[in-house]
Amino acid sequence: LSEVIKEGDDVLLLLDRKKTFLVKANKDKILHTHKGFITLENLLGEKFGTGIRSNLSVEFKALRPTIRDYIFKMNRRTQIIYPKDIALIIVNCNIHSGCHIVEAGTGTGALTAALAFYVQPSGHVFSYETRDDHIETALRNITRANLSEFVDIKNKDISEGIDERELDAVVLDLATPWQIVNHAYVALKGSGMFASFSPTIDQTLKTTIALRETGFVDINTIECLVRRIRVEIGKTRPETLMTGHTGYLTFGRKAN
Amino acid sequence: LSEVIKEGDDVLLLLDRKKTFLVKANKDKILHTHKGFITLENLLGEKFGTGIRSNLSVEFKALRPTIRDYIFKMNRRTQIIYPKDIALIIVNCNIHSGCHIVEAGTGTGALTAALAFYVQPSGHVFSYETRDDHIETALRNITRANLSEFVDIKNKDISEGIDERELDAVVLDLATPWQIVNHAYVALKGSGMFASFSPTIDQTLKTTIALRETGFVDINTIECLVRRIRVEIGKTRPETLMTGHTGYLTFGRKAN
Amino acid sequence: LSEVIKEGDDVLLLLDRKKTFLVKANKDKILHTHKGFITLENLLGEKFGTGIRSNLSVEFKALRPTIRDYIFKMNRRTQIIYPKDIALIIVNCNIHSGCHIVEAGTGTGALTAALAFYVQPSGHVFSYETRDDHIETALRNITRANLSEFVDIKNKDISEGIDERELDAVVLDLATPWQIVNHAYVALKGSGMFASFSPTIDQTLKTTIALRETGFVDINTIECLVRRIRVEIGKTRPETLMTGHTGYLTFGRKAN
Amino acid sequence: LSEVIKEGDDVLLLLDRKKTFLVKANKDKILHTHKGFITLENLLGEKFGTGIRSNLSVEFKALRPTIRDYIFKMNRRTQIIYPKDIALIIVNCNIHSGCHIVEAGTGTGALTAALAFYVQPSGHVFSYETRDDHIETALRNITRANLSEFVDIKNKDISEGIDERELDAVVLDLATPWQIVNHAYVALKGSGMFASFSPTIDQTLKTTIALRETGFVDINTIECLVRRIRVEIGKTRPETLMTGHTGYLTFGRKAN
Repeated sequence: LSEVIKEGDDVLLLLDRKKTFLVKANKDKILHTHKGFITLENLLGEKFGTGIRSNLSVEFKALRPTIRDYIFKMNRRTQIIYPKDIALIIVNCNIHSGCHIVEAGTGTGALTAALAFYVQPSGHVFSYETRDDHIETALRNITRANLSEFVDIKNKDISEGIDERELDAVVLDLATPWQIVNHAYVALKGSGMFASFSPTIDQTLKTTIALRETGFVDINTIECLVRRIRVEIGKTRPETLMTGHTGYLTFGRKAN
Repeated sequence: LSEVIKEGDDVLLLLDRKKTFLVKANKDKILHTHKGFITLENLLGEKFGTGIRSNLSVEFKALRPTIRDYIFKMNRRTQIIYPKDIALIIVNCNIHSGCHIVEAGTGTGALTAALAFYVQPSGHVFSYETRDDHIETALRNITRANLSEFVDIKNKDISEGIDERELDAVVLDLATPWQIVNHAYVALKGSGMFASFSPTIDQTLKTTIALRETGFVDINTIECLVRRIRVEIGKTRPETLMTGHTGYLTFGRKAN
Repeated sequence: LSEVIKEGDDVLLLLDRKKTFLVKANKDKILHTHKGFITLENLLGEKFGTGIRSNLSVEFKALRPTIRDYIFKMNRRTQIIYPKDIALIIVNCNIHSGCHIVEAGTGTGALTAALAFYVQPSGHVFSYETRDDHIETALRNITRANLSEFVDIKNKDISEGIDERELDAVVLDLATPWQIVNHAYVALKGSGMFASFSPTIDQTLKTTIALRETGFVDINTIECLVRRIRVEIGKTRPETLMTGHTGYLTFGRKAN
Repeated sequence: LSEVIKEGDDVLLLLDRKKTFLVKANKDKILHTHKGFITLENLLGEKFGTGIRSNLSVEFKALRPTIRDYIFKMNRRTQIIYPKDIALIIVNCNIHSGCHIVEAGTGTGALTAALAFYVQPSGHVFSYETRDDHIETALRNITRANLSEFVDIKNKDISEGIDERELDAVVLDLATPWQIVNHAYVALKGSGMFASFSPTIDQTLKTTIALRETGFVDINTIECLVRRIRVEIGKTRPETLMTGHTGYLTFGRKAN
């Protein structure tokens, strides 16, 4: 990747940790903010990381967007899965460059994009979704994150079966994951990874039972809590508000 | 990757979630366990995921090892960083196939191996370590995880400077990360990511102050708690014992 | 306490867990709510626990207020300490009927009221506060909770010294607790309990150091996280939002 | 309570936070420890908080035992409820001097003793238990904590009914709390408090359903996590090991 911002590059303009703008660096584009407007043309030829000032002389830093930035900036029609949960799915399922993965449901495309980001350049994600409006939103979001070449979104109900075979992983974020466990088993290669994200303990239990009955091993469920710390000389303390729950993550590995 | 176990392949033999063995499938090798011995030659030609029985007729599942398995099976001369913290570093620092990363200190090589796993095949990890015994252990551990071609371990004190330039990320797991912040700034490309793992709040504070003084932005610190859930019909509950603390993760992005 | 609601009794009218009203059952009083008005005279002669309907026929339950209800309904000029932290102070400091306690600062009077509630009927709480407006608010709050006979609020800066002696416990919720440690030592009886609530780790450290230098033993610091669980058939899960931090609790016992 | 240690007084001899001995100060008694023996007669006439040396010149502090100390020193035939959960039951159920409470099952008597400690001197605890061995152990434990005059242990199965009426609270720590909800409703006074401690989410759900069907209001479930912090200059951090789960606490209030 080039160090220098070029026409059409994505840029995250950061005012502070809580106020950022995801833009394309285009010649004739102006960004209007509550701190004044920014002529995006001025970014061209500058290095990523540079500061740019609005007409009110307020400075924004021009950062290269990360997969986390793309996810937080997605148009959301549904609740998106958190980066903390995505991170644990990526590492616990051994998802890396070259993997072939099935995912469902696509939803907003946040998890889809993250999976694509980690299987690139030689891997691929097949994502199942039944709702047309979700597919449309997800396609836009994944395209904006420059990951569409690594993704096929399929307009199909995954509870009717998975078309792919010899998959490295099946990753589920849908209401009835236990109905997909059999299909996942058939579609996975030997020793392939299963992961499911569910908000309720009841979904988790049903999924776990299905995994046990279907020949998965190393079945386990975790929950993950992330707490932000306010670090300041003489005043360091955890933040008052915290996300107390997103969902449970259930994993398994296909055995024969 | 082949579906079938071949001579020299790594195999994780799983008795249950708590009892596993990481072996090489070799013609003339026998694994001795408390549940009898296993003739590893019998694995050859079988698919990953297959069951294999010891002479006492106890079944083990032959799984393909994940990066998590390799990490947990490493020879440990030092405390290793947990997969949950590795996962957050990977995702929050946008580490993916093709990235060039500097890491210090190497220690056991657990974090090194994980970073290598996520930058492969086109990226690279340069890991700094001053102790010869750590280097030796780490090399063995990284080689065993089949990741040595993506790693250079450098026998050098990173507090004296970083040789590389235009890095995508600098990742630190050492006692005095604040001493490296300046070097990291110089070595990173614009918008490059800084991450540091520290057990104490004092290290976290010093590192945060150094980041603020050096031109990093989007500086933030989190801690991550993972709780295992025992999922059983009529008896579901979190596990009694839990790791209450590993360390704080501090992140920043280089701006100009 | 009588089972039957009498003129002047406090009543907590509960619509649901999130909507409650703390009122006095008076002959000529009307409560106006967003669900209609309630003629409080109708409560007289009824048993606690009874339902009463507004003119819009919406039912409210007439409960006897607990110390927790009084605390949550207090006029707040400052952040109040949470019931979870109060609970741990009460039990860890062995605070019970008959204890003599010094507390500072009074603030809203929430902790003062709770301490008074647990030392009644034969114990007493001496609460130090320098700000007149806090004293006024606290007096009103403590009187409303019917606990004023067990409390003396003293308009005095506790950092200048504690007047009382042979105390069972000294409980602090103020910005600089370490300045009070010496005074607490002098004022406590042998084996008496010290407790301090502080939002930041820096306050906690300074207080701990002061305790170690002053002859306290069994010094320890904890933090307490309470998570609410949404319990529903087929949909049980922790609540999404959670209070991630209130403060650290530091305890010690006076030795010679 | 006297400041001075007298014949027969309970004393907690504290070597450090992790090593303590609960003894009676008797003329002719010797305590043998791994740090030498202590002649307990030497405590008589000294103030609580004093230091006493073993024959090996190691100092122990002579503290007055708290309810928490008595609980941790109990003979345990069953898992005991933790002080953090006891604390939340005490405060959330408004348990204070003068309350009349039914509890089941008695078990080791830890919760029984804590409840007795908080209802003294004018309140009373009626504790139901079916197993003779538990009753015997609990009686010894409660007597040792000097609380037997405030407790009746009843050799009766509480699922067959509660004898008492007009109770302030019913507190349950048993395997099938939902079977007791009806009995609790009958036995409580109007607006009386129900509390139940259960390790599993399934018990919690069944209990919650029973409470909803029986006319309780303000029904809610929480879990409480306590984390110990190691506070040291330059090295402050949470402890590595933590109790990740004890049980869920479910509360309700009787309405008509």
